[in-house]
Amino acid sequence: MEEPTGQVRMIIEGLKPEIDGGRFPIKRVIGERVSVEADIFVDGYDATSALLLYRKENDSEWAETPMEPLANDRWRGSFVVAELERYRYTILAWVDQFKSWRRDLTKKFQAGQEVSIELLVGAQLLTEASQRVPEPQGQKMKEWASTLHSTQAAEQAKVQLALSEELSELMDKYPDRRFATTYPKELVVVVNREKARFSTWYEMFPRSCAPESGRHGTFKDCKVRLPYIAAMGFDVLYFPPIHPIGHAHRKGRNNNPVANPDDPGTPWAIGSKEGGHKSVHPQLGTLEDFQGFVAKARQYGIEIALDIAFQCAPDHPYVKEHPEWFRWRPDNTVQYAENPPKKYEDIYPFEFETENWQELWEELKSIVLFWIEQGIRIFRVDNPHNKPFRFWEWLITDIKMSYPDVIFLSEAFTRPKVMYQLAKLGFTQSYTYFAWRNTKLELTQYFTELTQTEVREYFRPNLWSNTPDILTEYLQFGGRAAFMARLVLAATLGASYGIYGPAFELCENRPREPGSEEYLDSEKYEIKHWDIASPDTLKDFIARVNRIRRENPALHSDWSLRFHEIDNGQLICYSKRTDDLSNVVLVVVNLDPHHTQSGWVEFPLEELGIDPQKPYQMHDLLSDARYLWQGSRNYVELNSQVVPAHVFRMRRRVRTERDFDYYM
Amino acid sequence: MEEPTGQVRMIIEGLKPEIDGGRFPIKRVIGERVSVEADIFVDGYDATSALLLYRKENDSEWAETPMEPLANDRWRGSFVVAELERYRYTILAWVDQFKSWRRDLTKKFQAGQEVSIELLVGAQLLTEASQRVPEPQGQKMKEWASTLHSTQAAEQAKVQLALSEELSELMDKYPDRRFATTYPKELVVVVNREKARFSTWYEMFPRSCAPESGRHGTFKDCKVRLPYIAAMGFDVLYFPPIHPIGHAHRKGRNNNPVANPDDPGTPWAIGSKEGGHKSVHPQLGTLEDFQGFVAKARQYGIEIALDIAFQCAPDHPYVKEHPEWFRWRPDNTVQYAENPPKKYEDIYPFEFETENWQELWEELKSIVLFWIEQGIRIFRVDNPHNKPFRFWEWLITDIKMSYPDVIFLSEAFTRPKVMYQLAKLGFTQSYTYFAWRNTKLELTQYFTELTQTEVREYFRPNLWSNTPDILTEYLQFGGRAAFMARLVLAATLGASYGIYGPAFELCENRPREPGSEEYLDSEKYEIKHWDIASPDTLKDFIARVNRIRRENPALHSDWSLRFHEIDNGQLICYSKRTDDLSNVVLVVVNLDPHHTQSGWVEFPLEELGIDPQKPYQMHDLLSDARYLWQGSRNYVELNSQVVPAHVFRMRRRVRTERDFDYYM
Repeated sequence: MEEPTGQVRMIIEGLKPEIDGGRFPIKRVIGERVSVEADIFVDGYDATSALLLYRKENDSEWAETPMEPLANDRWRGSFVVAELERYRYTILAWVDQFKSWRRDLTKKFQAGQEVSIELLVGAQLLTEASQRVPEPQGQKMKEWASTLHSTQAAEQAKVQLALSEELSELMDKYPDRRFATTYPKELVVVVNREKARFSTWYEMFPRSCAPESGRHGTFKDCKVRLPYIAAMGFDVLYFPPIHPIGHAHRKGRNNNPVANPDDPGTPWAIGSKEGGHKSVHPQLGTLEDFQGFVAKARQYGIEIALDIAFQCAPDHPYVKEHPEWFRWRPDNTVQYAENPPKKYEDIYPFEFETENWQELWEELKSIVLFWIEQGIRIFRVDNPHNKPFRFWEWLITDIKMSYPDVIFLSEAFTRPKVMYQLAKLGFTQSYTYFAWRNTKLELTQYFTELTQTEVREYFRPNLWSNTPDILTEYLQFGGRAAFMARLVLAATLGASYGIYGPAFELCENRPREPGSEEYLDSEKYEIKHWDIASPDTLKDFIARVNRIRRENPALHSDWSLRFHEIDNGQLICYSKRTDDLSNVVLVVVNLDPHHTQSGWVEFPLEELGIDPQKPYQMHDLLSDARYLWQGSRNYVELNSQVVPAHVFRMRRRVRTERDFDYYM
Repeated sequence: MEEPTGQVRMIIEGLKPEIDGGRFPIKRVIGERVSVEADIFVDGYDATSALLLYRKENDSEWAETPMEPLANDRWRGSFVVAELERYRYTILAWVDQFKSWRRDLTKKFQAGQEVSIELLVGAQLLTEASQRVPEPQGQKMKEWASTLHSTQAAEQAKVQLALSEELSELMDKYPDRRFATTYPKELVVVVNREKARFSTWYEMFPRSCAPESGRHGTFKDCKVRLPYIAAMGFDVLYFPPIHPIGHAHRKGRNNNPVANPDDPGTPWAIGSKEGGHKSVHPQLGTLEDFQGFVAKARQYGIEIALDIAFQCAPDHPYVKEHPEWFRWRPDNTVQYAENPPKKYEDIYPFEFETENWQELWEELKSIVLFWIEQGIRIFRVDNPHNKPFRFWEWLITDIKMSYPDVIFLSEAFTRPKVMYQLAKLGFTQSYTYFAWRNTKLELTQYFTELTQTEVREYFRPNLWSNTPDILTEYLQFGGRAAFMARLVLAATLGASYGIYGPAFELCENRPREPGSEEYLDSEKYEIKHWDIASPDTLKDFIARVNRIRRENPALHSDWSLRFHEIDNGQLICYSKRTDDLSNVVLVVVNLDPHHTQSGWVEFPLEELGIDPQKPYQMHDLLSDARYLWQGSRNYVELNSQVVPAHVFRMRRRVRTERDFDYYM
């Protein structure tokens, strides 16, 4: 498509989606539509045509789909990404002489002007076109051209031919693209499987899974725990690192710098003489045990996610085998992790500025590949913001070339631009600030940014209500109602969300000390025994929420999220919907875990497909209560001591006496 | 600056200003500052440094100026464009090991930690640095390194040396940039002279300048008119085309398709056997007369702007000499301009899709160069949106390489994206929708878009109150007050503005027919005799407004424009200021030309440099009245039948009894 510069007149600009001038791909899951817009225009008054071009990255041929003008020189087209591949897209546009001619002929003819010369111009256009049009239509085109040229045919008949749909369609199919403009960039779509967009995560320490207290849990114990997790409706089970834990500078309970001999250490201090990132901690079992567990989980519809924590305990085999991958200090010790004046002497970071960076990169990639070979396709990446951006871009792109179904979750809690950058360069999902967004304004602003701006093209939020590092003040002080409210918020604001259990369902809320977000007696440093049979557990509530998620496709994605007015600052209201409005979910949450709150909800009925003249049913999927509402303004009241939320499915049609069947 | 990929860790993105990913340059005038911002960050916690690099396009070396962090990973730096050249700018950033070390040492030392190893690390950093640092400082660096390394020196003394300003400055000057990241694009600034930003235009038909009625005006008559124009304070005098006017299909008065033998025709129907675009219409005089006139105008501080109208009358010499530059129809006639069903048979557009486009482009450029050789440096370009965008980009870029002081004004009244595109690709100034923005909301929205968004980086508005084609309804029905209000709006909202006179100052407001924006007996088709000595003329008012513009630097640019609250929909209030607040102008205009309107103005005092505790003087530069105001809320009342506007200069300091001199 080389451009004969001087004769090329079209402008294509302002293309969206395009991240940072095309530097980064956008993301979709299989079967999703990519809607592309651009400003497309020409000098003067000529008619124009435009095509959206797209192809799988390895295909050499473009597929084409027409773009349609919206208003103000904006055009739109779309295509569906049907396969688990990288796609490319761009735009082709040209001045359409035939369309201009047809438009002008119509105007002149309607104004009663003489059009004989115009018809001769048309004959020329058709003669030229006949060279482009394959047979048998080429011959037809020639005949039409000679009719327009003929002195025999009546003008009326010629005009009818000139303006015929058949001619127009044929010219549209074989346009004159000699002077077409191609948008100068090819933009990329990375396609993933549906779980990249819709996933329900449970984090658990396998070592705490022994049914009896005081014993180190094993993968076999985890197998026994699977029905419990499946019953709650989770489809991803994430384990902190399962590798041998370092002994040197091991941390004791509650992060004590001195460990007792029986302290198990933190799983993130990876590596000892028992092995490194490709080994399994012996007390959990063998690699075969792990494989057996993964297979069992699959039977329950649960995928196992492993932790990628690229750092070493001082006794990790790498330290001796590859001293060049660490930063050495003048006293011949390795530089441990620090955030002065804090020191983390049990952790050695890799030195990514090493001259041997290429070998280091390859080795780290081999770790991911090792676990992929064990059947793992989901990785939660620990602190990716502490490793170079270019490393992640290379690693993820490379891995996804061979394994496009792999999902990487970025566990970066850091400044916003760093979090977005990691998402741009390839992470499939990302941790968010959700845990610290508690008020209506905070939630509204943050989730509007995540779902209604360009951010959504590359950043897929995964909303965690708690983690082993994050027990928020809201949970510490809000009691059971706070856990329920945060669960509903996470599960409905985010198509992907997660909890760290059993701490969450058991409403564990004791901090190490006032003002700390660390758990008291944190599982990070000791083996816990959780009473999962406790009558106070939220497991049934969680199971109900996750069933609602599964059954309502509106909750499987984030882009349709809209916040609605409600005249009480402690109540938040929002909806999600499917494109065809066949499924609309409206959520109201009482953010005050202590008191009953009430207010008037207001939302745009028509936009949600509801006839404002007719009553409609609001089916609360949490309580199974059904409310009859009418109009855009309705009353809600939520007692946090019972259930602090409504999750309504809107049912447009309310039966009347005109229906035969009185029972749904 | 080749990047050793794996060790390069910095990210530079979100650079502004950057138009369409760097596809287009930004614009500045000589002496202006270019402020550049970007998101600059690294993985982890290392300290970073960044430089803004800039150079004249023909220089091979970059100049460097440090960037400073703002918040949230945003950095800013700036440079001044001091010469009439194209500049380039980009950013260089690196991980600063010395800064990190210094920061961490400070924290550890303050926390009372042992720092002996840190000091040895510092000794290494200094030893490395001594290789980069030229003598004699290199030697000094080595000595410092050995002090840090020495077992003799006291720790306290070493820390003092390590944290010394002298060392810090030297390390800042010779940093370790081995792994620096360069922003991948070089962005361009086109620099023009000050008139590109601040100019006061008067449009006049030279043929209507004869002192007596009934005679074709000449350049010599125009000379006599110069003092009149200069007295009003205009510094650009723009002439419609001065070339021979075609005879074929010449239009008569009021656009009559049939001309009388004595009808002069429209100056935009260029070319006859008397010559084309490089010739002067014989009735105006000779080329020498024109040169003499231009020289005389220069003495009055007035620059002459010519009209570039790339189109031909049917009897233009080009039609015979270069038939390949036109579109021929099957009946061997040339395709005239049309907008079906309207026909403009006196105008032949060029066929830019011709295979001979290169010769056509060169010839059109030679026209511009011809008039540049006659001393012309300002061109008003007629309907540029009807010629290919790439042609203009080439023409303007090429001309400005040799003549960077040339100004091109784009006369495109068309869809917004087309108007912006023309500005992006090189036009210095642009006509706007100002003529049709009459209400407070319309003016506020439009001028906020033009002055407070990225648009201002490339689109310099030139506000015309009227043109020979545009007599707005507002002027038709608003009488003298409407002319005054629109003049003040144009002259204060726009650093560049223009009027078409003497129609404007004589308040000519009769349309050809109701609903038309054409003038009755339009000067486009006939010679007019204007009674410039009329007692009703606005010339003195215009002179006063233009003097206010000259004397108040706040009005010399548009970026400081801010609209302020006023509780009357017929009153509009806005301000402009210089960066140092030494000149602040506040304008209030009564948009209702028929009635007196009053209201309460409210504006942010502190932002405008006024102490809210003290009275301040509002000096109305139109009436010379001085008002004493206090606080942010003050009353104004404007009688349109007197003057429909205040143009206040805010004077911060009001004298009190504490001052010696009671008279200003």
